[in-house]
Amino acid sequence: MTRTPHRRGADRTEAIMRTTLELGQEIGYANLSMEAVAARAGASKQTLYRRWSSKGALLLDSLLSLNEPGLDYPYTGDLAADLRAQIYAAVDLLAGPPYGALFQALVGEAQHDRRVAVALNERFIAPQADKTVARLRAARDQGQLSPDFDLDLAMAILSGPLYFRLLITQEPLTHAYIDRVLDVLFAGMTPRP
Amino acid sequence: MTRTPHRRGADRTEAIMRTTLELGQEIGYANLSMEAVAARAGASKQTLYRRWSSKGALLLDSLLSLNEPGLDYPYTGDLAADLRAQIYAAVDLLAGPPYGALFQALVGEAQHDRRVAVALNERFIAPQADKTVARLRAARDQGQLSPDFDLDLAMAILSGPLYFRLLITQEPLTHAYIDRVLDVLFAGMTPRP
Repeated sequence: MTRTPHRRGADRTEAIMRTTLELGQEIGYANLSMEAVAARAGASKQTLYRRWSSKGALLLDSLLSLNEPGLDYPYTGDLAADLRAQIYAAVDLLAGPPYGALFQALVGEAQHDRRVAVALNERFIAPQADKTVARLRAARDQGQLSPDFDLDLAMAILSGPLYFRLLITQEPLTHAYIDRVLDVLFAGMTPRP
Repeated sequence: MTRTPHRRGADRTEAIMRTTLELGQEIGYANLSMEAVAARAGASKQTLYRRWSSKGALLLDSLLSLNEPGLDYPYTGDLAADLRAQIYAAVDLLAGPPYGALFQALVGEAQHDRRVAVALNERFIAPQADKTVARLRAARDQGQLSPDFDLDLAMAILSGPLYFRLLITQEPLTHAYIDRVLDVLFAGMTPRP
């Protein structure tokens, strides 16, 4: 393996994040270290620590750099279709191969390391929650969402059942599963007349 | 601290599990080891490994030994009240002080150690899912649950939003939060006439 020369600014940041994902897939999160990423990316350890406080923070940025705009919600006017499209994209990106195992490890790390938990929430969950609430508020204004729906719960309600499958039962998160979850959440548990 | 004499059978098992919880609270899951538990419980390391393949499996059994029957569902005939009562009990036991941090660490470990994930599902999730499905099936027979409700999703739908809060946003799991989640799940997201 050849060491790439030191780079500056955005290019260097991007190279480090790409290296993090490559190396993480090869050796797994448990074996990943700031040192190993720095060495392969041809950067100094200080460069990494200047930007990322831990390998958890680095991995999070690296995962999010993949396709962040792809996680925006469409606004076609059909709430169910728009949620489904966004959730498919998010799940395909973060819960399936090749990055699913790294994202899962990152959430695992967030249970032991408070800084990783905070970074996960600030860098990913909170921005996603804002987008989700905005999409649902628009739907509520159009009468597609119950006026009583508790918008503050949107992320927990919509993504909770997906995290349950990713983290607890650890079964594959298929599109068919997402469809079934959305069907239940839209209809509710009690009978409709 | 005095070493308790070696014990046999159920008493010894119980003492080891109690020690696991005490020591886990004192030093945290990351610092917990089979050796340390064995030493404080006055048992041999082999005794522990004969019953538990890892500290994750030991911690899981120890947490479940606390109050397993308390996690049964009441059958008062009021589905919402019965679910609420069971979820309050489960959350109070596993997500709040003094054991919440240990349960959270256990789920974190399940992201890195396949055996812990399997044990978590076999020893806790699957039996809980069976109870949940049985309670919901009874409610469906009584017309309190939508005939279309997907019973296989019951655990993911009901507990997913709680795990999301425990593991992702890491905010306190209050009874008020549980009430709000149940309200949304019962009513559904789309407007009712």
